[in-house]
Amino acid sequence: MTRFRLTLEYDGGPFVGWQRQENGLSVQQCLEEAVLATVQEVTHVYGAGRTDAGVHATGQVAHVDILKEIEPARLMAALNFHVKPNPVAITACAIAADDFHARFSATGRAYLYRIVNRRAPPVIERGHVWWVAPELDAAAMHRAAQHLVGKHDFSTFRASLCQAQSPVKTLDCFDITRVGDEIRCAVEARSFLHHQVRNMVGTLRLVGEGKWSADDVSTALAARDRAKGGPTAPPDGLYLTRVTY
Amino acid sequence: MTRFRLTLEYDGGPFVGWQRQENGLSVQQCLEEAVLATVQEVTHVYGAGRTDAGVHATGQVAHVDILKEIEPARLMAALNFHVKPNPVAITACAIAADDFHARFSATGRAYLYRIVNRRAPPVIERGHVWWVAPELDAAAMHRAAQHLVGKHDFSTFRASLCQAQSPVKTLDCFDITRVGDEIRCAVEARSFLHHQVRNMVGTLRLVGEGKWSADDVSTALAARDRAKGGPTAPPDGLYLTRVTY
Repeated sequence: MTRFRLTLEYDGGPFVGWQRQENGLSVQQCLEEAVLATVQEVTHVYGAGRTDAGVHATGQVAHVDILKEIEPARLMAALNFHVKPNPVAITACAIAADDFHARFSATGRAYLYRIVNRRAPPVIERGHVWWVAPELDAAAMHRAAQHLVGKHDFSTFRASLCQAQSPVKTLDCFDITRVGDEIRCAVEARSFLHHQVRNMVGTLRLVGEGKWSADDVSTALAARDRAKGGPTAPPDGLYLTRVTY
Repeated sequence: MTRFRLTLEYDGGPFVGWQRQENGLSVQQCLEEAVLATVQEVTHVYGAGRTDAGVHATGQVAHVDILKEIEPARLMAALNFHVKPNPVAITACAIAADDFHARFSATGRAYLYRIVNRRAPPVIERGHVWWVAPELDAAAMHRAAQHLVGKHDFSTFRASLCQAQSPVKTLDCFDITRVGDEIRCAVEARSFLHHQVRNMVGTLRLVGEGKWSADDVSTALAARDRAKGGPTAPPDGLYLTRVTY
């Protein structure tokens, strides 16, 4: 048996999310079927981040155990062939240690949330960004985001369905910058609660519009109550960009 | 009558190109129908660049004459409403001088050609980049591209269907840079021949692969013969990014 570590890019649009579900095709199922087609083995593919429906990845990491002897480069090429026409690509493939676990060995996850902020809807990037027409103050959003950095009880930004044992997480950084019409929100932590990034971005949008102050964000955080947070940003703008071990 | 100048973004994928044709929907037709739906006037929308089928734009410029009095901001919002669900967006709209002509007043056009250069196919950017799997030497491509800068007879890079009166054009710059997995080819000129950018990029790919030297590009240019040039790069990676007046 060899354990392989896969680095993945996918367009979350057509998927029900990372995790296998009854109601549609998941990225996990798509990969497990590609492994089956490649080596005729029924496997379980474990991902570092269980991204939601519509959430994209440019640097998801997964692992899978395969009995048949196969070179990583050949496995990667075969998986890229068999995942077609689904929008998943294996961008790297390497042999991992037997105790490597894509999810439990991860020490950091980085997400990028992309907002297109202009009057006209984005059309080339449709489905790959969040369109916000009212002008946003990215500098104010960045300043408010700094109130979320550090170790906090993030119950205010936690989905009701979240299965994490504790709502306490530590944000290592949360940088918001404007590049032309685009506002890029880059956030890193060891791990996140369910919908945490989208709930934080949806709240910071209120700051960008001038409806909330940075102090309002602190007050909402301290309330530890989802009802005190802003709305959930759509999945379209969210990318899992990197997992560190 | 008021002449309006429109700045446009579009995904070229579903269109037969800029120009009206019998065999499918063009960007031009899509805009003319949106103008008709907005002000009930049959108009002609003139574009600065007649982009081919599948070619994208982030900064196409067009003009249209409208009899009805309408504010530019209202016209822009109404056009953005009526072009739906086609992937066209009007990103700016302003009143222009009566003698402004989107095509004939233009003094410069800038194109970007995007290549994703890696083993795995791009999936998030599918249709929006050219995928080239063999490793390309972007620095060698850039050096070779400098042999094309300046005033030359570009017959070697001219499509047989090209209607330009002269094959002599002046390239103002042709910069090729690698950003991670992506190779970005930025080229500017007053105007271009039909397929000129795609034919130059297809030829420079041969340099990137080490099959051609920079001198081979000069020799091909001097031959003034399309048969001596490299293949035509696909439309997917090409963007009209800016028109100057």
